[in-house]
Amino acid sequence: MPHTALIPPKSKQPVQTSLLQNDHSTEEVEVRGHLIDSLLLPKILDTISQQGGDFVVQEFQLGHRHNEESYARLQIQADSASCLEKIVDQISGFGATSVDIHDCQLKTATVDGAYPDHFYCATNQPTYVRISGKWKTVLRQEMDCGIAVDPVRESAKCIPMNKVHRGDLIVTGHRGIRVLPIQHGPERHLFDSMQPVIPSDKPKQASVREVVMEMRRYRAQQKKILVVAGPAVVHTGSVDHFCKLMRTGYVDRLFAGNALATQDIAAAIYGNLPESEHHDEFPSHHQRQNRLRAINTVRQLGGIRQAVEKGMLSKGIMYECVKRGIEFLLAGTIRDQSPLPEVITDTLVAQDRMRERLQDIRFCLMIASSQHAVAVSNLLPASVRLVCVDINPASVMRLSDPSKFHSVGLVTDIEPFLRDVVTQLTS
Amino acid sequence: MPHTALIPPKSKQPVQTSLLQNDHSTEEVEVRGHLIDSLLLPKILDTISQQGGDFVVQEFQLGHRHNEESYARLQIQADSASCLEKIVDQISGFGATSVDIHDCQLKTATVDGAYPDHFYCATNQPTYVRISGKWKTVLRQEMDCGIAVDPVRESAKCIPMNKVHRGDLIVTGHRGIRVLPIQHGPERHLFDSMQPVIPSDKPKQASVREVVMEMRRYRAQQKKILVVAGPAVVHTGSVDHFCKLMRTGYVDRLFAGNALATQDIAAAIYGNLPESEHHDEFPSHHQRQNRLRAINTVRQLGGIRQAVEKGMLSKGIMYECVKRGIEFLLAGTIRDQSPLPEVITDTLVAQDRMRERLQDIRFCLMIASSQHAVAVSNLLPASVRLVCVDINPASVMRLSDPSKFHSVGLVTDIEPFLRDVVTQLTS
Amino acid sequence: MPHTALIPPKSKQPVQTSLLQNDHSTEEVEVRGHLIDSLLLPKILDTISQQGGDFVVQEFQLGHRHNEESYARLQIQADSASCLEKIVDQISGFGATSVDIHDCQLKTATVDGAYPDHFYCATNQPTYVRISGKWKTVLRQEMDCGIAVDPVRESAKCIPMNKVHRGDLIVTGHRGIRVLPIQHGPERHLFDSMQPVIPSDKPKQASVREVVMEMRRYRAQQKKILVVAGPAVVHTGSVDHFCKLMRTGYVDRLFAGNALATQDIAAAIYGNLPESEHHDEFPSHHQRQNRLRAINTVRQLGGIRQAVEKGMLSKGIMYECVKRGIEFLLAGTIRDQSPLPEVITDTLVAQDRMRERLQDIRFCLMIASSQHAVAVSNLLPASVRLVCVDINPASVMRLSDPSKFHSVGLVTDIEPFLRDVVTQLTS
Amino acid sequence: MPHTALIPPKSKQPVQTSLLQNDHSTEEVEVRGHLIDSLLLPKILDTISQQGGDFVVQEFQLGHRHNEESYARLQIQADSASCLEKIVDQISGFGATSVDIHDCQLKTATVDGAYPDHFYCATNQPTYVRISGKWKTVLRQEMDCGIAVDPVRESAKCIPMNKVHRGDLIVTGHRGIRVLPIQHGPERHLFDSMQPVIPSDKPKQASVREVVMEMRRYRAQQKKILVVAGPAVVHTGSVDHFCKLMRTGYVDRLFAGNALATQDIAAAIYGNLPESEHHDEFPSHHQRQNRLRAINTVRQLGGIRQAVEKGMLSKGIMYECVKRGIEFLLAGTIRDQSPLPEVITDTLVAQDRMRERLQDIRFCLMIASSQHAVAVSNLLPASVRLVCVDINPASVMRLSDPSKFHSVGLVTDIEPFLRDVVTQLTS
Repeated sequence: MPHTALIPPKSKQPVQTSLLQNDHSTEEVEVRGHLIDSLLLPKILDTISQQGGDFVVQEFQLGHRHNEESYARLQIQADSASCLEKIVDQISGFGATSVDIHDCQLKTATVDGAYPDHFYCATNQPTYVRISGKWKTVLRQEMDCGIAVDPVRESAKCIPMNKVHRGDLIVTGHRGIRVLPIQHGPERHLFDSMQPVIPSDKPKQASVREVVMEMRRYRAQQKKILVVAGPAVVHTGSVDHFCKLMRTGYVDRLFAGNALATQDIAAAIYGNLPESEHHDEFPSHHQRQNRLRAINTVRQLGGIRQAVEKGMLSKGIMYECVKRGIEFLLAGTIRDQSPLPEVITDTLVAQDRMRERLQDIRFCLMIASSQHAVAVSNLLPASVRLVCVDINPASVMRLSDPSKFHSVGLVTDIEPFLRDVVTQLTS
Repeated sequence: MPHTALIPPKSKQPVQTSLLQNDHSTEEVEVRGHLIDSLLLPKILDTISQQGGDFVVQEFQLGHRHNEESYARLQIQADSASCLEKIVDQISGFGATSVDIHDCQLKTATVDGAYPDHFYCATNQPTYVRISGKWKTVLRQEMDCGIAVDPVRESAKCIPMNKVHRGDLIVTGHRGIRVLPIQHGPERHLFDSMQPVIPSDKPKQASVREVVMEMRRYRAQQKKILVVAGPAVVHTGSVDHFCKLMRTGYVDRLFAGNALATQDIAAAIYGNLPESEHHDEFPSHHQRQNRLRAINTVRQLGGIRQAVEKGMLSKGIMYECVKRGIEFLLAGTIRDQSPLPEVITDTLVAQDRMRERLQDIRFCLMIASSQHAVAVSNLLPASVRLVCVDINPASVMRLSDPSKFHSVGLVTDIEPFLRDVVTQLTS
Repeated sequence: MPHTALIPPKSKQPVQTSLLQNDHSTEEVEVRGHLIDSLLLPKILDTISQQGGDFVVQEFQLGHRHNEESYARLQIQADSASCLEKIVDQISGFGATSVDIHDCQLKTATVDGAYPDHFYCATNQPTYVRISGKWKTVLRQEMDCGIAVDPVRESAKCIPMNKVHRGDLIVTGHRGIRVLPIQHGPERHLFDSMQPVIPSDKPKQASVREVVMEMRRYRAQQKKILVVAGPAVVHTGSVDHFCKLMRTGYVDRLFAGNALATQDIAAAIYGNLPESEHHDEFPSHHQRQNRLRAINTVRQLGGIRQAVEKGMLSKGIMYECVKRGIEFLLAGTIRDQSPLPEVITDTLVAQDRMRERLQDIRFCLMIASSQHAVAVSNLLPASVRLVCVDINPASVMRLSDPSKFHSVGLVTDIEPFLRDVVTQLTS
Repeated sequence: MPHTALIPPKSKQPVQTSLLQNDHSTEEVEVRGHLIDSLLLPKILDTISQQGGDFVVQEFQLGHRHNEESYARLQIQADSASCLEKIVDQISGFGATSVDIHDCQLKTATVDGAYPDHFYCATNQPTYVRISGKWKTVLRQEMDCGIAVDPVRESAKCIPMNKVHRGDLIVTGHRGIRVLPIQHGPERHLFDSMQPVIPSDKPKQASVREVVMEMRRYRAQQKKILVVAGPAVVHTGSVDHFCKLMRTGYVDRLFAGNALATQDIAAAIYGNLPESEHHDEFPSHHQRQNRLRAINTVRQLGGIRQAVEKGMLSKGIMYECVKRGIEFLLAGTIRDQSPLPEVITDTLVAQDRMRERLQDIRFCLMIASSQHAVAVSNLLPASVRLVCVDINPASVMRLSDPSKFHSVGLVTDIEPFLRDVVTQLTS
């Protein structure tokens, strides 16, 4: 229960409300934490200016030393109540909360599949809502969702739009809501860097070592590790490394698409193509055929598990999943004309399954995935450690919004990355 | 001293079949067309070598002038029957067909949703199968599909894997199949270039003029034009241009995703954000909220049409679609947590709808779309004129496989491109 | 003379030096300005931590309103004197200066072409050195240079390494030096954005309007505008736009390389190639020949001016330069096997000429240039307005280090950009 | 119904010269070799069409088997003599030569530093000129150069424009010149691939093995290996690998710029920065300072050799060069404000030195270099084996013009690439 942390210290600077003319459109907010290191204060002030508001700093205490927290209390002014609300709403994402404490406001959903008007739009940061005078942690934290409150149990949880039922009580406005963003600590390590992406032309060996150490730490604490992988794991020739990674026990769950599973199975059944055939920018007709025949065979047998049981599939990533009981989840895309039987073709159903299977995940490694990685990152809370590896800088950048995650992105070749990770994890 | 090397040899194509030892693994094929200009012959010979086969040229006639067709007859040899079959199968995609003429071979599907073994894997090139001694055009030509034959009606059509029913007769092997690839003509125009992608640092004004002329030509012939558009049409500030394009009557159908429609509707309802807010790499919380509220509002009302009818939506791309009766099809992706009511969330259902609504399309303009553009290109026959425009070279490249389409790709900024197209089409 | 701005206000927070154990490796620094908006304070604290130092905030006053300056006084501690010196040296670039005031320290250069040991390494930010008790502005501010002091005239200026003469007095250490970095003001306009690069998929029309307004403002104030241009100005088909820009009087000086001048002259003499020839990724032999013949012709005549006078060159960028007396400077690269007579092939000579011709420049537009743009940006003081335009995001990024310039970068197509700029400037 | 279209026509190559009306603008050419595999014939026919010419195939013999050469004789027609000359000139680069045999035409240079008009513009392909009835190999083959003939010694060599002296005899027109382009052989190996660039998402281990085998083969034959390296060798943390490569004896010569040498020396003197500091997109002030101080120290001592001798420099790439007598050549760029003493700052002088030191090179490995790699590739004959490695696809593409070299490009991370190469070479 974080709210005691927000009791303001005795003010040492004079309150200067008289400077602001219109009482109707002002609001006093406070924020505490590593306001400078984590750039929370610059972002709050920037947001106020950008939205056309103004502010008076009523109190500010800078932590004297690098591990002390800072505290700020600001009076915000805007030309209109709606502008003020927009500002307060946005800066709440950086941890600023109104000094006036109310219960959160609730409204009843009048149709299935839609929130009531003025619903509060959640981020993926830890959030608390005040119900009957008590601050409650919002469960199943997920960005771009509403918050449903059970007034009887006095509990709150994020709820996706399409899951709303008529009669649900949904949080509206911004009163009685607190966001406590996960902050950069004062220690300098990989995941606290202000530069979440390590570019292609920079050394990565120390970063790989840190990723490996972090995986070890999570494993030692019995925390679950999810891997989201794209088909490049297969066509860069990294299947063996990935299989070793699975055999070491560092992969608790695998999320992927039809492409990864199909290419893995095609390679397992028909063998790798001569490398020269890989070099074409476009898959050859021969490659496309092999993939299609692999899918067809698995569909004839009824599924990947059946293909393993009947001896048709005897190596590769999907084989290891079946053999080792590593749960996999394959989500379809509109590019997949011929899905494997396990592929979930309805995108909302796939998201729901992913949501369920994400609840206990604490570490997520995204390898050469673009669509699936973005989809998963939309569902993850900010507290999950996120590592994204891709040779395409744009794919890594897209997953490295520092306002969402303390992620680390490596722009590098998949094959040597996985080789190094496995070598270090097994040595 | 090189010049003696240029004295031509005496022989003029004696047939040398005796050089090939094993009759069992040889096959004679022939091919006709612009074999040199369209690179068909180099690709055929390259494929044979790459697959470990060998060949003897039994006859070759090069078109004497640039508009005459050429003809080649080759005897192909391979170490094994399966290798030979693989070669013949692959070069059939470049128009090479066996000189031995048989009816196509058929096998019965034994389960729903899978082809029988050894099914023939279709390309998107015009294909013919021989049924009861007669060559029949394959209907609904689509790559990565099998071919189903109706022996009573003596008709054939491509059929996606998941549409196969037990008992369907499916073409197998490679006998009795002819592919006549669409060839580069001898005239040099934009769509016949050997360089399908116009890079970002090259002049594009003449190319834009040719695209516009081509659109005019198709329009004049009452041929249908499809536009596949990504959300960058909205966030590059090109909505007005695109709306004008729709009002000129040059857009018969629009395929897009939830992102385009949502961002268009959010901009129509809440106004464009100040441009400065757009510059952040990541959408701000404010932008995400606007989008979510826009979706929520449309869901409350029941759909986009209802939002237009109730006056909630009064401008923008989706508004124009409703007002002008331009059919739109929105296909969902796993990234869409909150789809608009019209979005088809099941990917196989979305593909089927797209297939239906593609049958009469002859020209396709793909603007700043990656997922949907690839999905649509997988469904299109090679005869459709394809223009892809994106500022990301990789997105354009991906859609410019010259063995699939005579497409043209422009790496350029969407906003000035659409502005120029509209200015030229309306002047 | 800025130093009055640095007189600290009366301290309101208790000084806590007792917390730090070792007096020998501590130093007290102060900084004033828009410490939060301009991220100066976060960068200072980050630098101290990153270098292994520690700090105590002795005083901090946050500007109460968004246009008020802030003030901070910090005591910095480090394990060793050398580490402390490194920290103080680095944070001086963010405006932090020692509260102990001394004259700057000088050492005599003992060889030509090298500074004495421990030379102070200048940035491109406005810098002051204290000589005989008086703060003096450093002239010819340039990054990666030493500072030479004339003790008789009590003047100081930046001096490149290869210009040092034995006996020159060079500033060493970090005492008696003040950097006052150009800060982001509280107003939000294009050049004050925290996001210096506008990505390719964002709207650019408002940015282009702001660039045009800024060019007008500079022109109206008789401030000089430099354009640094790469050959893509020619091969994107933008020569006519650029010539119009020169005719409007908005180009005071042009810096470019052999490639731009050669391609411009080749196009003027031999005409533009048919656009289709441009599409190849690599210049055709025909294009290379035309360029070589153009250079050869100009070399036969003695130079570009002579080519214009003899009527050989009668249009294009270089023609306009000669006709309108727009000074141009062509700097050679190791890629230029055959330079035009005007090309300066010695890189140090070229830099010296650029330095001379940069002194009165206040606005610099860099178009599709990579090598020359970086070279020029190394020579420019931070006060110059910088606009970089290129379709390659990496080229724009490279020129957008926010610690060096308040630049703005646009990732966009050159041709429509220049067309829009010219249309707006002439309307 | 397509199958009748496959009945071969009766005619078997009657010569149809009568179809071409104007004898004055026709010319007969012939070409021999792997015309289909190496795409020479498609390129010749494409060039004729593109330049507005027409042709009649007078004779064509396709090699019956994949290792037999083909032969073609064409009559080319154009509207004007100048157009015809342009066509013949361009297709000569693909090996097509006039059937009329004359001595080459010579003209005297009238000024220093420029060729006479109508000079023949050389490619980097093996070229022969006919002098006094005898075909002579052109020495010092280099693209974009003229050919100077010594009529007394009956010898010919390429000569750069700035080396021409008044009175030199230079080849003009296209008569008496033969180009025999290095052709793709029928065997399939890495350097004969039609896809010279191996993209980032493809497997590279087999390619690395082939590169290593090729280096071994060249080494065994005492053929010289040149490495052109960029500074990313240092900042990706690959110095140790590269030093090992030098110690194995696989580097005969090193071409680089000031940046590589400076960063290598700075790392050797000041140690590697903590990796975290590397992650910033822009070099920190601290990094820039270290580099500047390293240069200054070497300049104080007089040069890199002196720095090694005096014990100031005791490890790293430049140290190994000095210790092992590996010749290095550092060419300056306009970006280098402070060059090391060994850096050649005049670009023409640098090119001349490179030319001299390239004559015995047979294999060239370009690692993470853009400017220097392009400069060197402009000077190399087509016969040199070229391997380009960079993580930036654009840099690799730029060096992979298949009409210039049978190069192979790998888009991959430098550090694991060099690690793998060294491991394989030393095992």
